[in-house]
Amino acid sequence: MAPTAIGVVGATGYTGQEMLRVLGGHGGVQVVFATSEREAGEPSGLAGLAFSRGDDTDLDAVDLVFLCLPHGEAAPWAERALAAGIRVIDLTADHRPGSGREADAVYGMADLNAEAVRSARLVANPGCYPTGVTLALAPLVREELVEPGPPVIVNAASGVTGAGRTPKRDLLFAEVFGDFKAYSTGNGHRHLLEMRASLPEVPLLFQPHLLPVARGILETIYLPVAPGVDAAAVRSAWERAWGTAPTIRVLADGVPSLDDVVGTDLLALGAADNAGLPGLVTLVAALDNLGKGAAGQALHNMNLMLGFSPERGLRC
Amino acid sequence: MAPTAIGVVGATGYTGQEMLRVLGGHGGVQVVFATSEREAGEPSGLAGLAFSRGDDTDLDAVDLVFLCLPHGEAAPWAERALAAGIRVIDLTADHRPGSGREADAVYGMADLNAEAVRSARLVANPGCYPTGVTLALAPLVREELVEPGPPVIVNAASGVTGAGRTPKRDLLFAEVFGDFKAYSTGNGHRHLLEMRASLPEVPLLFQPHLLPVARGILETIYLPVAPGVDAAAVRSAWERAWGTAPTIRVLADGVPSLDDVVGTDLLALGAADNAGLPGLVTLVAALDNLGKGAAGQALHNMNLMLGFSPERGLRC
Amino acid sequence: MAPTAIGVVGATGYTGQEMLRVLGGHGGVQVVFATSEREAGEPSGLAGLAFSRGDDTDLDAVDLVFLCLPHGEAAPWAERALAAGIRVIDLTADHRPGSGREADAVYGMADLNAEAVRSARLVANPGCYPTGVTLALAPLVREELVEPGPPVIVNAASGVTGAGRTPKRDLLFAEVFGDFKAYSTGNGHRHLLEMRASLPEVPLLFQPHLLPVARGILETIYLPVAPGVDAAAVRSAWERAWGTAPTIRVLADGVPSLDDVVGTDLLALGAADNAGLPGLVTLVAALDNLGKGAAGQALHNMNLMLGFSPERGLRC
Amino acid sequence: MAPTAIGVVGATGYTGQEMLRVLGGHGGVQVVFATSEREAGEPSGLAGLAFSRGDDTDLDAVDLVFLCLPHGEAAPWAERALAAGIRVIDLTADHRPGSGREADAVYGMADLNAEAVRSARLVANPGCYPTGVTLALAPLVREELVEPGPPVIVNAASGVTGAGRTPKRDLLFAEVFGDFKAYSTGNGHRHLLEMRASLPEVPLLFQPHLLPVARGILETIYLPVAPGVDAAAVRSAWERAWGTAPTIRVLADGVPSLDDVVGTDLLALGAADNAGLPGLVTLVAALDNLGKGAAGQALHNMNLMLGFSPERGLRC
Repeated sequence: MAPTAIGVVGATGYTGQEMLRVLGGHGGVQVVFATSEREAGEPSGLAGLAFSRGDDTDLDAVDLVFLCLPHGEAAPWAERALAAGIRVIDLTADHRPGSGREADAVYGMADLNAEAVRSARLVANPGCYPTGVTLALAPLVREELVEPGPPVIVNAASGVTGAGRTPKRDLLFAEVFGDFKAYSTGNGHRHLLEMRASLPEVPLLFQPHLLPVARGILETIYLPVAPGVDAAAVRSAWERAWGTAPTIRVLADGVPSLDDVVGTDLLALGAADNAGLPGLVTLVAALDNLGKGAAGQALHNMNLMLGFSPERGLRC
Repeated sequence: MAPTAIGVVGATGYTGQEMLRVLGGHGGVQVVFATSEREAGEPSGLAGLAFSRGDDTDLDAVDLVFLCLPHGEAAPWAERALAAGIRVIDLTADHRPGSGREADAVYGMADLNAEAVRSARLVANPGCYPTGVTLALAPLVREELVEPGPPVIVNAASGVTGAGRTPKRDLLFAEVFGDFKAYSTGNGHRHLLEMRASLPEVPLLFQPHLLPVARGILETIYLPVAPGVDAAAVRSAWERAWGTAPTIRVLADGVPSLDDVVGTDLLALGAADNAGLPGLVTLVAALDNLGKGAAGQALHNMNLMLGFSPERGLRC
Repeated sequence: MAPTAIGVVGATGYTGQEMLRVLGGHGGVQVVFATSEREAGEPSGLAGLAFSRGDDTDLDAVDLVFLCLPHGEAAPWAERALAAGIRVIDLTADHRPGSGREADAVYGMADLNAEAVRSARLVANPGCYPTGVTLALAPLVREELVEPGPPVIVNAASGVTGAGRTPKRDLLFAEVFGDFKAYSTGNGHRHLLEMRASLPEVPLLFQPHLLPVARGILETIYLPVAPGVDAAAVRSAWERAWGTAPTIRVLADGVPSLDDVVGTDLLALGAADNAGLPGLVTLVAALDNLGKGAAGQALHNMNLMLGFSPERGLRC
Repeated sequence: MAPTAIGVVGATGYTGQEMLRVLGGHGGVQVVFATSEREAGEPSGLAGLAFSRGDDTDLDAVDLVFLCLPHGEAAPWAERALAAGIRVIDLTADHRPGSGREADAVYGMADLNAEAVRSARLVANPGCYPTGVTLALAPLVREELVEPGPPVIVNAASGVTGAGRTPKRDLLFAEVFGDFKAYSTGNGHRHLLEMRASLPEVPLLFQPHLLPVARGILETIYLPVAPGVDAAAVRSAWERAWGTAPTIRVLADGVPSLDDVVGTDLLALGAADNAGLPGLVTLVAALDNLGKGAAGQALHNMNLMLGFSPERGLRC
């Protein structure tokens, strides 16, 4: 059987580059175009494939297309592709909860929503921060381990590729090197809408920071727990939910660091009790923003949509 | 008048090196010995001064001595010096609150405790993390802006010099580069005792992280506030407390980053409200762990003890 | 057929860790022990395998052993293994040219010496710096493109893992971060003996530098060329020598950077002419010191020794 | 006497920012304007001074102006200022040797050219790379220690601020982090013209590299020496030339690293012999590209022009 034909739109941003990398290692699909306005004509890194301009690209040549564009530019591409009968995985925010277009798409949190993804025509691939927060908290909410009322505080830190590859002064090497800072203070980050849609029961305070590394997200979550709940109970709930999930690792003890996940498609989860504060458990979620936080989850979604084994081609 | 004679014990660790640097720029004192077992005989970087071995050092030649040793090694030195009538500023944890020897020393949180420091014989120079937390929270506690009951969550991140210069695998370049991790989970970090002594009214959760930079501490503090209190009220209280403090900067808006303070003896403070969560204000405190968090505050204390202008020689 | 049984001695240094990583991805062999005095009993990262102490290890359980110890500790292990009829790939300097034991081993520069490696009992896996220099220069020497007489200057820079994982002050994060320096000045680096053994015709000046990155070597080589020889001629000679070598990439134009090779088992080669200086061509060789410079080449050698396809399991 | 009034044009690039920093510490001059199109109206960091737009700036208010613009934009400003009788220090390449406008300016290599600088109306402040190379080689050429004929090879590496603050993809954090590469291969870098003008007797091969640090230049120079000349002779010649130069340090042994100079206005020089190659001495020059390589040397030139002590305000 011929491999399924795949297209990547916006293939030279950080997300697009990672998408090509994981697709290249999949083995069951073939990338037949990869667009880049900036590098059209240059070799893509995949054998025999040069980047093409979007306007010169024949959408009909593929069965499924990944949209790795800057936020805001994906919606018209999705419309064109769907009209042509081509399935779409949109890695931008354009069809995520809070976008106003979420009703048109299936939310591709693959570990929570596999059934709907399998038959979806248009999948909104989740944001990097919401992936860690949602997969850490959803099982705990479901099992009623979370104390209702007080906010769950998510102190997050991300490497710089999370901000995209468009040149901006704030992202220059000499600005970031040796620095560390909070950004989007005020609980107004775009990703909050997405987290709230998945976790409507939980008041969230989300505070991101910019980390002087290229890749990786670490989310330190301060969780008010119901009476009697401790870190061991949290781990048990995670085990029940994610024990067989191919890309989620629950640590038996301790908490994960970036090094455990960078370059992989894994989410690693750990929990710790706090001396003197029985009502608060600290959770740590670690993932690669370009792996499980973007291209890895997109490939997972593709596997579901095309009937492959869910973990095929994933680095886990 | 001849400059006051000063000694530095343990002058080749990160704290000792920074101590020599700020003493060299002071102008009103003269360093007459700087000990290093490892580099005895080598030039110290100060004109005409070589490092000496501790045993070969004449304590009587100085009026005041800075102890920059590994934690645990300062107490016997302090005893010897005090017996010889020499004043001591101990930069280790050996005489800080929680050490068991705190009763013998004046706690040198210079901005809070200047009067007692002026006449002290032995000053316990505060830890780097407690300096930011205490100076951020003390005025808010005093003015009753803090909501009693729920814990104040301190999410802190420090550069690697905070862990000292003794070679350990975890501190090797290739271990830290590209990584980020939480450590001392469980609310058991040594610095907690010190914070609690200064802030007995406030339940604290303190979670430090190791940052892949050489210097600097950023503390993101999630503060439960009394009804009606917001970031503006926090800034006003800070202004009242620290408006004339030479080494504390209260930001009129926004929050500070490491770049604002690394290489200085400043503490920078900022506050932000959180949409949808009126009971929580986010505070950010930034300082250089070797500056305001160690050698800068030690020099400040020396200035108080010797009758210099408080800010003399400080990088602010 | 059962997979060949493999042992790794010294499996928690940087080289040993990388060895486990590439062996884990090979598919045709099985690691049955991995020694670590420091982490004995801890999981090795390979399914079902814990680290064991050297003394508790049954050498007879394997067909081939990799020695990833500190330099100087491999020779007795090699002796024991050979006496027991077990083949050895030694990743230390103990059996390389210049060690005094080179006569007992086959030098495992896999791309130059495949025939001898296939039947070897003991392979001395080359050093990281010599791998780049030798594979860049050997074809040019053979084709007489190098001008006899003036020295070939090798200005090299390596990431910090090249110096091993034993804790030393010079390798601490805060010492290396933001710094860059030359070391082993005086043309006396140990690797020179190894380079000279492979390139006896060429006078070499080898000057290494320590780069503030974890992995990767870049060698900028200033090559005096015979009259009429230019960068294009160099590339042609490389193509003739390495056109079918699975782990060597000759760039059609430009020169490689670390990013082209880090995390792979590739050596990338580029050449450039110099305006106004027709007698000097600049060569750039880039490789990962832990990949092609250590574990990658060791796996390549293992493939030759065990009859696998040469590139099996290599990241290229 | 009122302090001399100074203007800075282009005050928010890396060079302009450093210029404000050193001017702020000088004590004998007052910055009365600092232009920035991008941040006009924002505080400049100097007490009481906001950035102004170029068009809104009254050149006549100052006695001397520093031009810290992108290369190519300084010439019209210089013309305007000179016409108004205002002295100019141009930190761009616009009036350096090779620019075509070098005849209109005095070349401000302060340590070589102090007399001419004192009375100059327009000073072309040297490039960062040429500062190290020229001050290292000029005394050796003058004393005839250099072997005529073979090229002097300058292998240089610079931190990223050397490339300016205009956002470009190649300078983004995630592009540079963990990477190292040669650029401007082919012996065609703009700075070569400038070096050749100062060192017409010496054939030069200049190969720069981009270093993943914010600041600092290390130049490793492979110098063909006349018979009998060694590293000690080089150091003696440097001592004769630079023994009293306030911002040049000749190391008694060893070679300097970036850490010795970053954040200072120093140039550090070291030399080493090479075993087996008596005709080649290795020189290492280290400087901060923004210090001695830009703002530090500009302040030095200002001191000469205005009659201050040459080292006033310099970090040395």
